Amino acid sequence: MSTAFDHLPHLRYAGPDATGPFALRHYDANRVVLGRTMADWLRPSVAYWHSFVGTGADPFGAPTMDRPWFGAADGMEGARMKAGAAFAFMERLGLPFFCFHDRDVAPEGATLRESNANLDRMLEVVQTHMARTGIALLWGTANLFSHPRYMAGAATNPDPEVFAFAAGQVKHVLEATHRLGGANYVLWGGREGYDTLLNTDLAREDAQLGRFLNLVVEHKHRIGFKGTILIEPKPMEPTKHQYDRDVATVYGFLARHGLAKEVKVNIEANHATLAGHSFEHEIATAGALGILGSLDMNRGDPQNGWDTDQFPNNAQDLSLAMLEVVRAGGLGTGGINFDAKIRRQSIDAEDLMHAHAGGLDCCARALLIAERIVQDGTLDRLRAERYAGWDSATGRAILEGRMGLDALAAHAEAGGAGPMPRSGRQEALENLAARFA
Amino acid sequence: MSTAFDHLPHLRYAGPDATGPFALRHYDANRVVLGRTMADWLRPSVAYWHSFVGTGADPFGAPTMDRPWFGAADGMEGARMKAGAAFAFMERLGLPFFCFHDRDVAPEGATLRESNANLDRMLEVVQTHMARTGIALLWGTANLFSHPRYMAGAATNPDPEVFAFAAGQVKHVLEATHRLGGANYVLWGGREGYDTLLNTDLAREDAQLGRFLNLVVEHKHRIGFKGTILIEPKPMEPTKHQYDRDVATVYGFLARHGLAKEVKVNIEANHATLAGHSFEHEIATAGALGILGSLDMNRGDPQNGWDTDQFPNNAQDLSLAMLEVVRAGGLGTGGINFDAKIRRQSIDAEDLMHAHAGGLDCCARALLIAERIVQDGTLDRLRAERYAGWDSATGRAILEGRMGLDALAAHAEAGGAGPMPRSGRQEALENLAARFA
Amino acid sequence: MSTAFDHLPHLRYAGPDATGPFALRHYDANRVVLGRTMADWLRPSVAYWHSFVGTGADPFGAPTMDRPWFGAADGMEGARMKAGAAFAFMERLGLPFFCFHDRDVAPEGATLRESNANLDRMLEVVQTHMARTGIALLWGTANLFSHPRYMAGAATNPDPEVFAFAAGQVKHVLEATHRLGGANYVLWGGREGYDTLLNTDLAREDAQLGRFLNLVVEHKHRIGFKGTILIEPKPMEPTKHQYDRDVATVYGFLARHGLAKEVKVNIEANHATLAGHSFEHEIATAGALGILGSLDMNRGDPQNGWDTDQFPNNAQDLSLAMLEVVRAGGLGTGGINFDAKIRRQSIDAEDLMHAHAGGLDCCARALLIAERIVQDGTLDRLRAERYAGWDSATGRAILEGRMGLDALAAHAEAGGAGPMPRSGRQEALENLAARFA
Amino acid sequence: MSTAFDHLPHLRYAGPDATGPFALRHYDANRVVLGRTMADWLRPSVAYWHSFVGTGADPFGAPTMDRPWFGAADGMEGARMKAGAAFAFMERLGLPFFCFHDRDVAPEGATLRESNANLDRMLEVVQTHMARTGIALLWGTANLFSHPRYMAGAATNPDPEVFAFAAGQVKHVLEATHRLGGANYVLWGGREGYDTLLNTDLAREDAQLGRFLNLVVEHKHRIGFKGTILIEPKPMEPTKHQYDRDVATVYGFLARHGLAKEVKVNIEANHATLAGHSFEHEIATAGALGILGSLDMNRGDPQNGWDTDQFPNNAQDLSLAMLEVVRAGGLGTGGINFDAKIRRQSIDAEDLMHAHAGGLDCCARALLIAERIVQDGTLDRLRAERYAGWDSATGRAILEGRMGLDALAAHAEAGGAGPMPRSGRQEALENLAARFA
Ligand SMILES: [Co+2]
Ligand SMILES: [Co+2]
Ligand SMILES: [Co+2]
Ligand SMILES: [Co+2]
Ligand SMILES: [Co+2]
Ligand SMILES: [Co+2]
Ligand SMILES: [Co+2]
Ligand SMILES: [Co+2]
Repeated sequence: MSTAFDHLPHLRYAGPDATGPFALRHYDANRVVLGRTMADWLRPSVAYWHSFVGTGADPFGAPTMDRPWFGAADGMEGARMKAGAAFAFMERLGLPFFCFHDRDVAPEGATLRESNANLDRMLEVVQTHMARTGIALLWGTANLFSHPRYMAGAATNPDPEVFAFAAGQVKHVLEATHRLGGANYVLWGGREGYDTLLNTDLAREDAQLGRFLNLVVEHKHRIGFKGTILIEPKPMEPTKHQYDRDVATVYGFLARHGLAKEVKVNIEANHATLAGHSFEHEIATAGALGILGSLDMNRGDPQNGWDTDQFPNNAQDLSLAMLEVVRAGGLGTGGINFDAKIRRQSIDAEDLMHAHAGGLDCCARALLIAERIVQDGTLDRLRAERYAGWDSATGRAILEGRMGLDALAAHAEAGGAGPMPRSGRQEALENLAARFA
Repeated sequence: MSTAFDHLPHLRYAGPDATGPFALRHYDANRVVLGRTMADWLRPSVAYWHSFVGTGADPFGAPTMDRPWFGAADGMEGARMKAGAAFAFMERLGLPFFCFHDRDVAPEGATLRESNANLDRMLEVVQTHMARTGIALLWGTANLFSHPRYMAGAATNPDPEVFAFAAGQVKHVLEATHRLGGANYVLWGGREGYDTLLNTDLAREDAQLGRFLNLVVEHKHRIGFKGTILIEPKPMEPTKHQYDRDVATVYGFLARHGLAKEVKVNIEANHATLAGHSFEHEIATAGALGILGSLDMNRGDPQNGWDTDQFPNNAQDLSLAMLEVVRAGGLGTGGINFDAKIRRQSIDAEDLMHAHAGGLDCCARALLIAERIVQDGTLDRLRAERYAGWDSATGRAILEGRMGLDALAAHAEAGGAGPMPRSGRQEALENLAARFA
Repeated sequence: MSTAFDHLPHLRYAGPDATGPFALRHYDANRVVLGRTMADWLRPSVAYWHSFVGTGADPFGAPTMDRPWFGAADGMEGARMKAGAAFAFMERLGLPFFCFHDRDVAPEGATLRESNANLDRMLEVVQTHMARTGIALLWGTANLFSHPRYMAGAATNPDPEVFAFAAGQVKHVLEATHRLGGANYVLWGGREGYDTLLNTDLAREDAQLGRFLNLVVEHKHRIGFKGTILIEPKPMEPTKHQYDRDVATVYGFLARHGLAKEVKVNIEANHATLAGHSFEHEIATAGALGILGSLDMNRGDPQNGWDTDQFPNNAQDLSLAMLEVVRAGGLGTGGINFDAKIRRQSIDAEDLMHAHAGGLDCCARALLIAERIVQDGTLDRLRAERYAGWDSATGRAILEGRMGLDALAAHAEAGGAGPMPRSGRQEALENLAARFA
Repeated sequence: MSTAFDHLPHLRYAGPDATGPFALRHYDANRVVLGRTMADWLRPSVAYWHSFVGTGADPFGAPTMDRPWFGAADGMEGARMKAGAAFAFMERLGLPFFCFHDRDVAPEGATLRESNANLDRMLEVVQTHMARTGIALLWGTANLFSHPRYMAGAATNPDPEVFAFAAGQVKHVLEATHRLGGANYVLWGGREGYDTLLNTDLAREDAQLGRFLNLVVEHKHRIGFKGTILIEPKPMEPTKHQYDRDVATVYGFLARHGLAKEVKVNIEANHATLAGHSFEHEIATAGALGILGSLDMNRGDPQNGWDTDQFPNNAQDLSLAMLEVVRAGGLGTGGINFDAKIRRQSIDAEDLMHAHAGGLDCCARALLIAERIVQDGTLDRLRAERYAGWDSATGRAILEGRMGLDALAAHAEAGGAGPMPRSGRQEALENLAARFA
């Protein structure tokens, strides 16, 4: 079968001095970094939606991209063409994983049953491509936000029939993900939020959402799915306010509904930006809370207030995020999914490959910078020294609950003028981190 | 004693058509609104710091305001002059409450013991004024952010000696608050956060902060303080990132440290703005989570990214916040504290009174708008109707956990094309709310 | 002909105490306000695009709204159905004006000539409706942003053939606007900007844009169009950075290209928000610079960073904008165009009418508040008094250039300690403005 | 004389592999880059205010830094100690320039005359240090924002006596800058803006500001100062809205007041951030408009909405700014002034040196990246090719005004379906730029 991407070359690692546009200069899958291969640290993945479903349309303009399957006379025929092209493209990239929503892969039918049947037929096609290419599934997910039935939410819809429909859809995609050997299952609640508080009952919707997620976890165990269930936080867009705002908010939700040991987070860089956080903050927070799952790798525009989902391209910036991944011990069953899209003007097939090549190299560089920081050891040593007092007798007595306010007050009063401040050394540490970039 | 405010009149309710600059047009303390007096709903309070400590200085300019006590030769003498003027001013306002930090009321000494002694002496003065005027204490708090020793945090400082000093300070102010009959005790962790992740261990600092708050709660019970312990969320400023970011983040922290039943939140409007939330969102969230405590009433500038702490002046905006207070059943031991400051150019004593008069009337108007919305009932009825399906058999079966994903999928598949979307009626509801403004 | 809106009532002024959902409580077209009728001050207008072309689709979801003409088998037949429905709706609203883009009214053809022919045929239909209903054209505009040919800009495209195409399109729509008696012609340069500086030559694109606008002005005079040429500023979206960022930026552009006397601005509230300005700032700036033309009336969400284009609903907020309109002497040939769209969940025909009714009443209330502020006179008097010194001999000597730095330095040195600061009275003025709301 | 900085080493270039904390790895003053030395391209400068006047205080906390001159019994004595320490520090840095405000160098007196005398005495001290060290003055400026007299603006104050005072102050500092051989004179209008439109007359204040700047330019010519007059744009802070918002706004102001050929801009990175622009946007805009003057080098925190003024540390980010400097042909009489401050916790003298060493190396790296991009040539070639059509006969006819709308419309109509879109190649260009980082 010929596809829109057949003329593209295969990406190959060619060393840092290579100059060709499709040469990888930093991503060397089998290079060992801090005891694991690059591929094991990163587990990079292609996002089916942006790369093979995206049209270049935006709220002010029509599609600009012309992919053969957009013009297919029949939805299922288009889906087959798309799958063929997608795997041809992914083979050329050479990445080990992909991710999908049900509606990316197969068209919605007139009923849930028909939609499920469409999906099952297409997943047979996809499985053939997976077997042929060796490309595995990082995660699957159900699209609970595009269809009008979900305009007021899926689990948090005021109509329980919508909840039931969403439940049926998730059941099917969770089982399909299991069948395809997916490493994780993701929920992104794009419409789980509100457009106006005037028509919204937060307590009700929280209870609904908690019930829904518990259903998913219960079903996962019932069917023996060993992958991780992940929530992808986002603060807003398309809703005015989305419930899964950021990592800390999701943690509170999980704790409230008894799920903090069952569910982790899939952190997207651009969503961190929209929530007013750095990407590394979100990763470090998830690491500290024990819920770091996977990463949706992209970047936002610091001057634009919407989800631009650009490919990452500043390795120094990203090195701080990678450092937090390393500190957290890696991503477990997760990986880095390029949930990123080429710009509306990037209408050539080559552009899609440039984007992935650049993004991949950027992540590899960032990992290598993090490796140098860790191997040098100075940064971690200085940080540890800063907290050394907490390993003293007083420090331990405090943390272990052996000193109450009375004892602490007496201790402080005995201390006279109190402790001397010590420099936080921020600029020196920033220089140190920059030196390895 | 003569004070800087002796020439100011007393604020008096004069009805909606009054035109004088110091006439209250809406705040009528004893007017009954939805079954309680206005004063009971609002429990308005003056903030000692902004109103009596603020100088008009900003990061680019020197003080502009000239209060007699700024020039006092001795710190304690200045504190006494300030207290006299403060109560003279508050008497003229006629509000029932005030709030303070220890360092607003008395100067820091060379040691903790000396600082405590200074505070105790001044609180005797304050108590005399309270007894004379009948003005009560809404809440007290310890300033754990201005002194250089706290530059890297108080509870989350890398040095446990700073933790101990802070513990001693809080113990003293908590006990003082109890002694003065305070209705609440507040913690605002202005330096509990980080300036750079490079020198920060989030997990350690979370453990420290959790321990600290547990100490406070344990001590509260030990001394028999019946008031509420409140955390005031703020996302940033002065730190780059503060841990008590917003209501949902604080909830997660409380849940993690076993405090969700013990501690509530003091929500500040401008902090909601800085965190990317509407004020009403934060109140509604706290209401839904059962942790609504008190309000710091002010407003931010929608175009300025720092904590401008202006007095509120748009009653329609604020009516949506008041509606959420009403829906949550009120503020309990909390109130509305005018944590608001006059602008740097507002250098006349009159300006301070204009600011409070306008802010108070704005809150009263907002409450009256909320009353009309609730009494009309249409908004609440439409909201309830929207969720009516959840009171059906299916709805209850879902929420009560009697339907798993299998049952729900079967239900949805039987439903064919699925439920029809219904209008969210946002514009109609917005019109309805605006009609009562 | 029956339309989707035939069942809707006509909006009628019913006084401030009316309670019906479609009663206007404040907009009373013939009420005289500061010497002109409300209708003359506001000249309200319906936006063809949002109200009759909008589908409810957003970047994450499919259309939710079902209008009969969306399903028309033929583009021109759909356009006719749409026009019929649009005028039926506008008749029910009772507003005197509408606005359109060429592509709202008639479908794009395969060539420019065919597109022009489509438009001409449809404008005959529109003219019939205009004649029948008495609804006039506030402004026309050419859509130079939706078609892929414009993806890299129209006038600022790197390809001069695109510039030529855009010129041909604007010529046709400008002439059509003239033919229909339009009061203004608007240019919104949605793609006149850049997505990355890496491929952009700012100086070249500035020269192109300057030439383009000069062409429009030259042609306007050639054909005898007496309306105003307007630029609509917007800082970003859909591009990363749009050249017509805000009023001050557009002023600089006009000055640079010799057009400051020829072109005015059409200020949109939500675009001010996106640019980091208040709406009243943009209006006051345009007033001070003599380029205030017209208003696109809507509002953004203060927490969402994209162009939400909601209907206005806070009259107190808007009163500050209306006050600036009044101070500038009104909008001349301009008006207030509801460039606002109903939310994606507002899928009922009624919702479109609720939205316009609420928006119209909000503007009328804001105008009435401004009237009361102006009639009271205190605010303007206090402002004038603040600058009174500039009417002194020294003030005049300075402004008229009769004192150089030497003379001023001598004057200041003679003044010793210098002038005393005076209160800016901000809170008192805010209270005053709020009193009339 | 011994100073607080005597124990610090001299910064030395030690090559990219050096590991010491005070080794410069990239800034090699005499290295030739694109035909000039690094020092000639960058002309780096130390900011007297942040480095020698800053205390670590912020709006929520007291000073944290302890410099010997803070405790001087007498203002002039402190100023002398400060000057000695400042030049000792700058010698160790080895940078060729410094910048100052009058009030950084000498204390304000009771009258303008006394303040001027203080300044003159201290500038004699400073001149001695300059002669001894060879450090030159990049620019001087008058502080027109810290004293309460300027709380409502200097040139835009409602009181002409304040205008006169400011004029006298500027005259003195401009002449002093001339006397010290300063390369530029800067005006930053920190209070030239408004806090509320309610008390503000924009047209009046614009006229005042235009007159003021004309006075400065007239005086410059009168005294024969050959340096450049520069305006430093900033959008807000300390005022709610500052008039010199960004480069485009300043351009419009200059054009309006006949100064576009007389005055250039001093662009600060953090001010670009606050205005919603990238730093490279502001530089490219100034370059295209012919008003690029100098740079205030720092960075903002992308998540904090105030002027954090951190030292730059991401060379890849900064390389896009440096590329625009190179494209504009350099900075002329300008340079890069480190208008950056160490964090409040960075209380050791070493921290000040770490900060400058890191900032300097970051700028040098950024320049070297820009050099590689320019020498490679691909980026510039692709950009030029994109606009090649404008060098065709049609392109030239359009830009030279030889085709009106009629001719262009005929041309476009003859073109049938119109031009084909071409890829903007954004990702490929981003990869190219990243490759050289
Ligand atoms: Co994502
Ligand atoms: Co995204
Ligand atoms: Co507060
Ligand atoms: Co605040
Ligand atoms: Co508009
Ligand atoms: Co808009
Ligand atoms: Co600066
Ligand atoms: Co700055």
